[in-house]
Amino acid sequence: MTGFDQISCQRADSAPAADPPAADAVRVALAAEFASRWPADATGLDAVHRYALIPSGKLLRPLLVAHSALALGGDLRQVLPAAIGFECAHVGSLLHDDIIDRDATRRGQPAVHAAFGLEQAIIAGNALYFSWFTALADCQKRGASDRQIAAALDIQARAGVETCRGAADELAMAGDLDGGIAAYMEMARRKTAVLLSAACRVGAILADATTEQAALLSVFGEHLGLAFQIRDDLLPYSNDHDLGNKPGDSDIRNRRPTLPILLALEATDSSTCRTLRRVLLTEADHHKAHRQLRALLERTGAISRARAIADRHAAQAQEAISELPPGPHTKALNDLTVTHATVAGPTPSGR
Amino acid sequence: MTGFDQISCQRADSAPAADPPAADAVRVALAAEFASRWPADATGLDAVHRYALIPSGKLLRPLLVAHSALALGGDLRQVLPAAIGFECAHVGSLLHDDIIDRDATRRGQPAVHAAFGLEQAIIAGNALYFSWFTALADCQKRGASDRQIAAALDIQARAGVETCRGAADELAMAGDLDGGIAAYMEMARRKTAVLLSAACRVGAILADATTEQAALLSVFGEHLGLAFQIRDDLLPYSNDHDLGNKPGDSDIRNRRPTLPILLALEATDSSTCRTLRRVLLTEADHHKAHRQLRALLERTGAISRARAIADRHAAQAQEAISELPPGPHTKALNDLTVTHATVAGPTPSGR
Repeated sequence: MTGFDQISCQRADSAPAADPPAADAVRVALAAEFASRWPADATGLDAVHRYALIPSGKLLRPLLVAHSALALGGDLRQVLPAAIGFECAHVGSLLHDDIIDRDATRRGQPAVHAAFGLEQAIIAGNALYFSWFTALADCQKRGASDRQIAAALDIQARAGVETCRGAADELAMAGDLDGGIAAYMEMARRKTAVLLSAACRVGAILADATTEQAALLSVFGEHLGLAFQIRDDLLPYSNDHDLGNKPGDSDIRNRRPTLPILLALEATDSSTCRTLRRVLLTEADHHKAHRQLRALLERTGAISRARAIADRHAAQAQEAISELPPGPHTKALNDLTVTHATVAGPTPSGR
Repeated sequence: MTGFDQISCQRADSAPAADPPAADAVRVALAAEFASRWPADATGLDAVHRYALIPSGKLLRPLLVAHSALALGGDLRQVLPAAIGFECAHVGSLLHDDIIDRDATRRGQPAVHAAFGLEQAIIAGNALYFSWFTALADCQKRGASDRQIAAALDIQARAGVETCRGAADELAMAGDLDGGIAAYMEMARRKTAVLLSAACRVGAILADATTEQAALLSVFGEHLGLAFQIRDDLLPYSNDHDLGNKPGDSDIRNRRPTLPILLALEATDSSTCRTLRRVLLTEADHHKAHRQLRALLERTGAISRARAIADRHAAQAQEAISELPPGPHTKALNDLTVTHATVAGPTPSGR
């Protein structure tokens, strides 16, 4: 039985319609798992989690876990808890990021710390981090082996630490425009790409991937993550950035040397550099800073160059999975790359 | 080879002295493991962790992991990473607790958020939580099996979530004197006892305990944890509380209904109740509140009653391990109970 057949069976219980595309079926299964774990009558900490998790974002990480596993013949029901777990890890980090970045809005509603208070947001974020691991343990009840669980634990735990190192790097880099592009890329890898890569690798482990398949999916996730982070950096400078749910000026307000800014500093004359530094580091009116930076970054070609780098990573991601068995789930992974990591794709709504 | 013999071998490498007592040998091994993981030249996030972890506190949780395993014939070298991991989990929670409780001092030095900033303290706490799981994964490199790792993961992850639920309960109970003693005990179980119980159970799992042995150690840890938490509640009212490194008035400043206060409310006349409520909930001068509460709690017998409840849990803890194989490590677990959970023991320095 292939992964796709299993999804069809799964889906048939609740919907008698014709087989939906693989990606839709996975989304339906994920939504059902979220709703059963955080029901509408949730109270206390569970209610805070429901507020943060439902309605969900784009579910990139759970989709990566599920499609990575299914592309290699894994069992959707068995990997669903691990997939949900990766969303817990991601949303846990958002709860804490919003405190650190002083962002009061998330996904079009007050951020958790704004709605429930700083203390609750810290605790709820921590509980989501631990839920990443209880969710992995839940896969065992659905047939995952000790060996799979132990291997996935190692990946998740190390990815968790790396993500924290990325957050610490980002904090240390705020207001520092001299760190260089290599340091930025390492920060982006830790902060964003490692978790996406781990999602793919955990999916692979739960499908008993070969060493080579697991490595290809890890490489895929890492390049996807880098492309995705650079695209996120470009968001404040896109034409329709006001449509996003995350305030577009968070990076500017936090004086972050994002990739387009570092590219502009590298490639421009000293007078333009001075202007860039002044605007990013000292302009108190963030909306004014935003307008000025956008004009500068466009004029110096930094936006085009950042787009090209993102596209290169997206292409490398697609190349990695081109060696996987072809099928609807390998195609779904490719589609996720197009949607979330190439600049030509639709505008994302929030990270 | 018994656990004690193994420790002797371990110890013999570095110190040619006569065999030290089992507890001393474990402490030496723990200190060496801490020093090798967080060396003096640590930078970035590692330096923050070193600041928080070294010099260490009383290492109750690592000692519980190690002695639980060794009491059942486990291998010290194999369980050491897991033991260190439990201190990471504990100290991670302290970093966040100090933010939540607005405590500026910890173990006689500025708390991490006071020394490094709120943002770093949130990130460093998270990284310590994840290190709890990387440390468990490290046990595999020292010979622990997939089955042991998967079983221990389940215990750790669920304990992590429960600890967060306890922290959320405690937050919700602040300023509420009508919650009752049963709700308090459930909060204390989640907040403190579950992690101590998990430490014992993970030690048992790593030593291939029988189901019955693992259950006895879990029960031991839970009663020890309850006694320990009640003793912590009593700390501000002990005669030498100023000697502690943690400010004795944190619970009062945060208007917490700790056990002695709930016992006093339950047992006293309505006029004394009104005074207690007024002092805890409205007295702005916390030192004055502290003096008044102490007098009231002594007069109503609440302190003696809380002590008796702590002693009962300590006795239940000791009873649970009385069924384990006798030896130096079962004795060490008993000694930890006397030191940390009976009111007659020495004054603890910080949680």
